[in-house]
Amino acid sequence: MIVVMKPGATNDQIQHVIDLVREFGLKDHPIYGTDRTVIACIGDKRAVDKGALENAPMVEKIVPILAPYKMASREVRQERTEIPIGSGGATIGGVKVAVVAGPCAVESRDQLLEVAHAVKNAGATALRGGAWKPRTSPYAFQGMHEKGLKILAEAREQTGLAIVTEAMSADMVGLIDQYADVLQIGARNMQHYPLLEAVGKSKKPVLLKRGPSSTIEEFLLAAEYIINAGNPNVILCERGIRTFETYVRYTLPLTVVPELHEQTHLPVMVDPSHGTGHAHLVPPMCLAAVAAGADGLLIEVHHDPEHAVTDAAQQIDPRTFSAMMKHLRRVAEAVDREI
Amino acid sequence: MIVVMKPGATNDQIQHVIDLVREFGLKDHPIYGTDRTVIACIGDKRAVDKGALENAPMVEKIVPILAPYKMASREVRQERTEIPIGSGGATIGGVKVAVVAGPCAVESRDQLLEVAHAVKNAGATALRGGAWKPRTSPYAFQGMHEKGLKILAEAREQTGLAIVTEAMSADMVGLIDQYADVLQIGARNMQHYPLLEAVGKSKKPVLLKRGPSSTIEEFLLAAEYIINAGNPNVILCERGIRTFETYVRYTLPLTVVPELHEQTHLPVMVDPSHGTGHAHLVPPMCLAAVAAGADGLLIEVHHDPEHAVTDAAQQIDPRTFSAMMKHLRRVAEAVDREI
Amino acid sequence: MIVVMKPGATNDQIQHVIDLVREFGLKDHPIYGTDRTVIACIGDKRAVDKGALENAPMVEKIVPILAPYKMASREVRQERTEIPIGSGGATIGGVKVAVVAGPCAVESRDQLLEVAHAVKNAGATALRGGAWKPRTSPYAFQGMHEKGLKILAEAREQTGLAIVTEAMSADMVGLIDQYADVLQIGARNMQHYPLLEAVGKSKKPVLLKRGPSSTIEEFLLAAEYIINAGNPNVILCERGIRTFETYVRYTLPLTVVPELHEQTHLPVMVDPSHGTGHAHLVPPMCLAAVAAGADGLLIEVHHDPEHAVTDAAQQIDPRTFSAMMKHLRRVAEAVDREI
Amino acid sequence: MIVVMKPGATNDQIQHVIDLVREFGLKDHPIYGTDRTVIACIGDKRAVDKGALENAPMVEKIVPILAPYKMASREVRQERTEIPIGSGGATIGGVKVAVVAGPCAVESRDQLLEVAHAVKNAGATALRGGAWKPRTSPYAFQGMHEKGLKILAEAREQTGLAIVTEAMSADMVGLIDQYADVLQIGARNMQHYPLLEAVGKSKKPVLLKRGPSSTIEEFLLAAEYIINAGNPNVILCERGIRTFETYVRYTLPLTVVPELHEQTHLPVMVDPSHGTGHAHLVPPMCLAAVAAGADGLLIEVHHDPEHAVTDAAQQIDPRTFSAMMKHLRRVAEAVDREI
Repeated sequence: MIVVMKPGATNDQIQHVIDLVREFGLKDHPIYGTDRTVIACIGDKRAVDKGALENAPMVEKIVPILAPYKMASREVRQERTEIPIGSGGATIGGVKVAVVAGPCAVESRDQLLEVAHAVKNAGATALRGGAWKPRTSPYAFQGMHEKGLKILAEAREQTGLAIVTEAMSADMVGLIDQYADVLQIGARNMQHYPLLEAVGKSKKPVLLKRGPSSTIEEFLLAAEYIINAGNPNVILCERGIRTFETYVRYTLPLTVVPELHEQTHLPVMVDPSHGTGHAHLVPPMCLAAVAAGADGLLIEVHHDPEHAVTDAAQQIDPRTFSAMMKHLRRVAEAVDREI
Repeated sequence: MIVVMKPGATNDQIQHVIDLVREFGLKDHPIYGTDRTVIACIGDKRAVDKGALENAPMVEKIVPILAPYKMASREVRQERTEIPIGSGGATIGGVKVAVVAGPCAVESRDQLLEVAHAVKNAGATALRGGAWKPRTSPYAFQGMHEKGLKILAEAREQTGLAIVTEAMSADMVGLIDQYADVLQIGARNMQHYPLLEAVGKSKKPVLLKRGPSSTIEEFLLAAEYIINAGNPNVILCERGIRTFETYVRYTLPLTVVPELHEQTHLPVMVDPSHGTGHAHLVPPMCLAAVAAGADGLLIEVHHDPEHAVTDAAQQIDPRTFSAMMKHLRRVAEAVDREI
Repeated sequence: MIVVMKPGATNDQIQHVIDLVREFGLKDHPIYGTDRTVIACIGDKRAVDKGALENAPMVEKIVPILAPYKMASREVRQERTEIPIGSGGATIGGVKVAVVAGPCAVESRDQLLEVAHAVKNAGATALRGGAWKPRTSPYAFQGMHEKGLKILAEAREQTGLAIVTEAMSADMVGLIDQYADVLQIGARNMQHYPLLEAVGKSKKPVLLKRGPSSTIEEFLLAAEYIINAGNPNVILCERGIRTFETYVRYTLPLTVVPELHEQTHLPVMVDPSHGTGHAHLVPPMCLAAVAAGADGLLIEVHHDPEHAVTDAAQQIDPRTFSAMMKHLRRVAEAVDREI
Repeated sequence: MIVVMKPGATNDQIQHVIDLVREFGLKDHPIYGTDRTVIACIGDKRAVDKGALENAPMVEKIVPILAPYKMASREVRQERTEIPIGSGGATIGGVKVAVVAGPCAVESRDQLLEVAHAVKNAGATALRGGAWKPRTSPYAFQGMHEKGLKILAEAREQTGLAIVTEAMSADMVGLIDQYADVLQIGARNMQHYPLLEAVGKSKKPVLLKRGPSSTIEEFLLAAEYIINAGNPNVILCERGIRTFETYVRYTLPLTVVPELHEQTHLPVMVDPSHGTGHAHLVPPMCLAAVAAGADGLLIEVHHDPEHAVTDAAQQIDPRTFSAMMKHLRRVAEAVDREI
């Protein structure tokens, strides 16, 4: 951490900051420049609230040097983490790009089984489907709940696909854990800490979606919560950020893929369905995500999008999915990956 | 809802959309323009997923007409709602501007009582203080929990100030309800629906903070969740949105105050502490918020900000608070309000 | 400037950066921390491209310490700058809050004179009105050009109000200079450097609007261009930034007012007409801007907004303007200013 | 255009809007819904200021239906436009992906020629290099001006590469036109209309960069200015938008590529150098852009990035460029394109 003093700070004011730095257990190292003084603070105190120093007189700003997360960082582990999902030998984070596909919500047994077989045939790695749906409106369909979980389990039995489904609150984790192969944390809950701690106690891998206004640092700190609670198997998933753009539901910043690979050893997925919000944009962004180095894709597929109960605009049909998978395989090979 | 067809849509494609519209229980009303056809859909079906129509062939876009919330809207209630807080006769939403002040977190009995008396003397309406703290980092101070609630209750007894404190998850609501006068929902939890439903069953007013990337519509839909679950006493609180600006922690969009007063009957507060992130910006933004028509302010005050354990950079000391209150009273009078 | 090395940087890699730092004419000052090395670079070299160092092996990031502008900063001048506008004794930046009002565009002699007299009677300080209009669409009204300037001059003669009007390109500055009292640079041109240099050679004050995605630093660097070219009389004007919000045309970040007063000695105005885009939001944001410490307001007033040719949605009529001015006077007094 | 009335609008207020609609030369078509009235306005009047109606009493909002641009839209031309660049037979917009590479600025004859030969050997289509540089700081290097143009022309002679260079203001267009094969409009000037009109009169193709806070509609309207002035050969170039993200200089929204292909017949390029701001992110985003369907790339290459005078952090060296081109060829083939 580096404290930048305003020009004109007196010796007493500088000393006051040095005293605070020492009080926080850090070593001070003042540097007297041409226009102003800066105080480098040495020592690994990730928990010190940098704001405390900012409130001291004549302090202009505080510049943190260390990333505030540790176990998610490549300082702790250089090689990439490969995470097994389900019991069929599938993994995420290796050479193979994982494709997790399925409807936004489980709507009925027929719907889910039809989509499950279709995505399986087209080469998907795992099946997604929500049993509890966090909906913006209280008047919208909220999911089939445990009945939906049972249908997902049946689809796994029939297809062999691993099941990815969302846990919306800490008290749900126990139940969902009994059915799911991967526990999903939705974007709205990325900073719901009781839930992060609850899935941190599960043995199942966690697919953590980035909040739409979260920085990379906040995203990795959310992963750190889960790892810190005992679960090292965190899969990061970009699903779009909120910007001024209106032709998309969210702006999909694919640069996050190579940047996260620089900063963390955890696998990185991309969700082009939420990340664009419109079916016609999903296939090209799937190709682009894999070209950018994504370890996996999360894709909404529905057998009859015009009658989908949730997020209808962004679901593609099995035919489109299957055609896209053919292109995807070629792009994966072009960047030395497989599908 | 209005469906805009792409130029070149055939009669069959238009008919297909009309069939879907009717299937959803809406009345269709096609308009044939010079370049394209639009289909107005009549009927109050707030729960229809507009995306379903967007996925039909040759549909360009869907334009919703009705706001998706109802009970929070001024269509249902024209006059402003005034909400009593605590048992001392204070309200929010009337002529008096409510000032809710106190530390970010309850850190100790001495700290809280010192700040409580200071803000009471300067004219505050209620006392804020977190007993559970949602922290970005798992390594940061997480709050004093029930012990903190007991200290808040003691402060209420000594000062008569109503207590505002945060509930972080649904299973905490019962406990916090026993101590607090107002239940606060933090910005990170604005779309944590199990929590919204839980406070919706409480008899205490709810202070709902806007998520940093939420639209006004999503904000009012979150309020709608609470009202729909049975609790009409929702206080809205703007606390800054995420933008490209870096000199502030969040950008504080005060325009939201007059706009919310147009769209909803619920009272509107502003939190300039989180909304700026820096102590020197808090007093001017308090004045500006009241000039813009805010019904209340949420302000972080700490007796020793340099040693605050959380959010130190944005807490002002009691002397600054007291000086600001004098100006605030004058600004309130200038816009025909009181403090 | 501080160079932060990645963990694991070798001595050779650190030495390579030190060599580059010395080559750039700066003094190096390495600090060996617990996890990584940082190199403080001492010396006032605002023109060094920090990116050059970022490209060296094992450099993680570069942290600038000095603001890149100088003449606009309070390092050079502590007291606020008060700038005379026109020959009638009006100024901006003193105790009096300047109100610059008038139509978006000069549409006709009758229109402008009617509005000019109305805003004069209500207490405006100066008259605004565009003779060249930068329009998003090539098919939209582009202004009355020199004819419009002559009408503005006539309005000045009749009312005594100083004239503020926009120069859209460097080759226009000479002509506009003959008519205007203040040269306005529009938001779209904030970084059009040939224009900044051209108005930097004028003797007239310059009203510089912030670009909708500009940082404060870029805004002050644009002012620095003008001052550096010879014209110290720069008036800064916030007019809204682009964010994800859709109920406004732009988000108006009033926090910029106190922050700019911290960082620069130049006067700071606010334009709530462009900053909101909707007439009903203009009056409350005028009050809020003055409460936040603004030195002036730029307000669009049209005698018949329903028939305004440009920006009709955000223009208020003279009656609304006059009523707002009464409130504005009271708010100004509450923060020890006058109108 | 559709006018949405507020609930409770009286017949007189509705009639007043209908009168305005007719006055503007549009045909009205009122629809009386369950809660409110909307008035569809029929007729192609792209120049009507929709704000004028918004200011009428009890109007809630105006929803435009027609895109405000015409000649840039696919309503006018369905098939993609392929634009020849230079005299060597290269084009942009066809099956071949155009790679325009070279340094940010022309710094010297040696530098430019070295880079030109390097990118030529690696397979580039054209050479970029700035002779006038719009720089955020007035103290930064501003370019070699006409001397730089002459060096670019020499590089073309030696390598056969077409030359792409920026025109910063209308009065420069004539001179640059004598040297360049493609006139570039920088992001800061996307809405500098005198310049758009000036290049609209040139016979050379124009590479138009998207402004960092421009919507797609504003971007296409800027293209429309150029086409409307007489030059149909406009190449669109995405170079990143401003968002809350800080690990990148700009967020690169690749979704814009398939979306623009939906809305316009003009070719779409991507600039991953400005679009990320960091050399290590450039190669993966080049691959992703081509996978997403980009018709070309604009890439900054410098033979010695550590000593580059401008934008050093985002320039890659010839070795990195050459390695990336090998991958790029494979990705292009995977999506049925060539390089």
